[in-house]
Amino acid sequence: MPDKCSINLQTMQNNTKFPEIPGPIGIFDSGYGGLTILEKIRAELPEYDYIYLGDNARTPYGTRSFEVVYKYTLECVTHMFEMGCQLVVLACNTASAKALRTIQQRNLPEMDPNRRVLGVIRPTVEAVVAMTTTNHIGLLATTGTVQSDSYPLEIQKINKDIHVTSEACPMWVPLIENNEFRTKGADYFIERDVRNLLAADPSIDTIMLGCTHYPLLEDKIKSLLPKGIQVVSQGEIVAKSLADYLQRHPEMESLCTRNGLIRYFSTESVEKFSSSASIFLHEEIKAEHIDLG
Amino acid sequence: MPDKCSINLQTMQNNTKFPEIPGPIGIFDSGYGGLTILEKIRAELPEYDYIYLGDNARTPYGTRSFEVVYKYTLECVTHMFEMGCQLVVLACNTASAKALRTIQQRNLPEMDPNRRVLGVIRPTVEAVVAMTTTNHIGLLATTGTVQSDSYPLEIQKINKDIHVTSEACPMWVPLIENNEFRTKGADYFIERDVRNLLAADPSIDTIMLGCTHYPLLEDKIKSLLPKGIQVVSQGEIVAKSLADYLQRHPEMESLCTRNGLIRYFSTESVEKFSSSASIFLHEEIKAEHIDLG
Repeated sequence: MPDKCSINLQTMQNNTKFPEIPGPIGIFDSGYGGLTILEKIRAELPEYDYIYLGDNARTPYGTRSFEVVYKYTLECVTHMFEMGCQLVVLACNTASAKALRTIQQRNLPEMDPNRRVLGVIRPTVEAVVAMTTTNHIGLLATTGTVQSDSYPLEIQKINKDIHVTSEACPMWVPLIENNEFRTKGADYFIERDVRNLLAADPSIDTIMLGCTHYPLLEDKIKSLLPKGIQVVSQGEIVAKSLADYLQRHPEMESLCTRNGLIRYFSTESVEKFSSSASIFLHEEIKAEHIDLG
Repeated sequence: MPDKCSINLQTMQNNTKFPEIPGPIGIFDSGYGGLTILEKIRAELPEYDYIYLGDNARTPYGTRSFEVVYKYTLECVTHMFEMGCQLVVLACNTASAKALRTIQQRNLPEMDPNRRVLGVIRPTVEAVVAMTTTNHIGLLATTGTVQSDSYPLEIQKINKDIHVTSEACPMWVPLIENNEFRTKGADYFIERDVRNLLAADPSIDTIMLGCTHYPLLEDKIKSLLPKGIQVVSQGEIVAKSLADYLQRHPEMESLCTRNGLIRYFSTESVEKFSSSASIFLHEEIKAEHIDLG
């Protein structure tokens, strides 16, 4: 394992290649939310090996600037490449919105043009565009994802006639990560933000949950909606999209090992990660610590 | 300025000394809360120069593990030494609780035994012990500060007969940093946590606000308390304690420059820091970016 100082942009600009040997699929998130995506991916593709990396020591990304989200995401992706991943999924909307394009276009060609980094926004958008009948879509997401405009921009690429209305929900992640999302205080913020979205465009028939934490609020959100509005969370969409990707790219599929194994890594302490992860997963897990930044 | 890789424990363990020339007083916080302390310090000691460093790219510290808080705090303190500070105040309760002692006992002797790092817990405790008449004190703080047990331990050193009852308030910092602390949703969490504290010990006559964000909630908290319970926030206490320290240590006082200047540094983007800082300060500020970790 290279020491801390070699994991930086210097290395990448030198066009250093990582070894081309089969490895686990990397699932990256800024915190715990990506576990909701991981769960659906493993249900869809149980035979593959996975590494989950949560940058919990620096979570949440949702309210941070472009520069910071890009820097942290690139550090984590680089580390997952060093751990042997040929394919990394950014199971984090803020990282997908603020860092994915630059990593794909600027860093990957220099680091290793054969590796792949995929995000969660494009598959979500493709699914949701096929679902709306009014052509009015709502987005509930973090401030960072909303400010990035990534969802409306991706949707416009597919269909210019679709209107997207966004509502930033900055309190939802702290409410979930502190396990306070079933309280009356949480109800206030969830009800207010959903109401604001519906008021901003009464023609919305499809609402995207553009944050991997939000599936934990799905029942509550659905209970606030008039009949006929559907809610789309990302886990199953991303899982099916990944399965489809592997089928269409046998050269990448052959570089993903298949023993049904998983390892969890976190930049936070192992105890804290394991305890908080239990809010999201339905099994006891054993995490390993990694030091980044 | 040394490059990123030289700012690490390796440098310190080599017993590298920083130059002994007069410099500004460093005020460190994990985020924006330390600005409430800085404001009071500048009101008390306006003639000195200050550097404020907010580790906003990695905030909040309040819910992070000991290991992570120690690592980040040490990086920031080291950086402030490199910028010329002879004296650094950790204007952050979590850093004071989880990192101060180790930095003072383990790192300072190796880095530079003449520099000083001071925290906010000891001066707060000294003030509050003198104020209680029932010997029952309440503490409202982040989960990290409460779990560290630093406040009860420091109080016990002064007076073993004093009972300290603590209530962790994990939602208060996100409510303040997202400027949601004046909402009904915020009221729910503030009222619940204050009520829990009072129920746990009805003899409390003095409540410490053990987080530098909480002065923004002081009026709301006071409105919830029965008559006769006093609330102590830290700004003025820390400011008076620093003035007293400089008077008692002329060798350190002579190493602090006095031109009434201030510079703000943040690990976040300059735009984001300046905009969020306006929640805490009553003036427009111009921040500078620094890259850590």
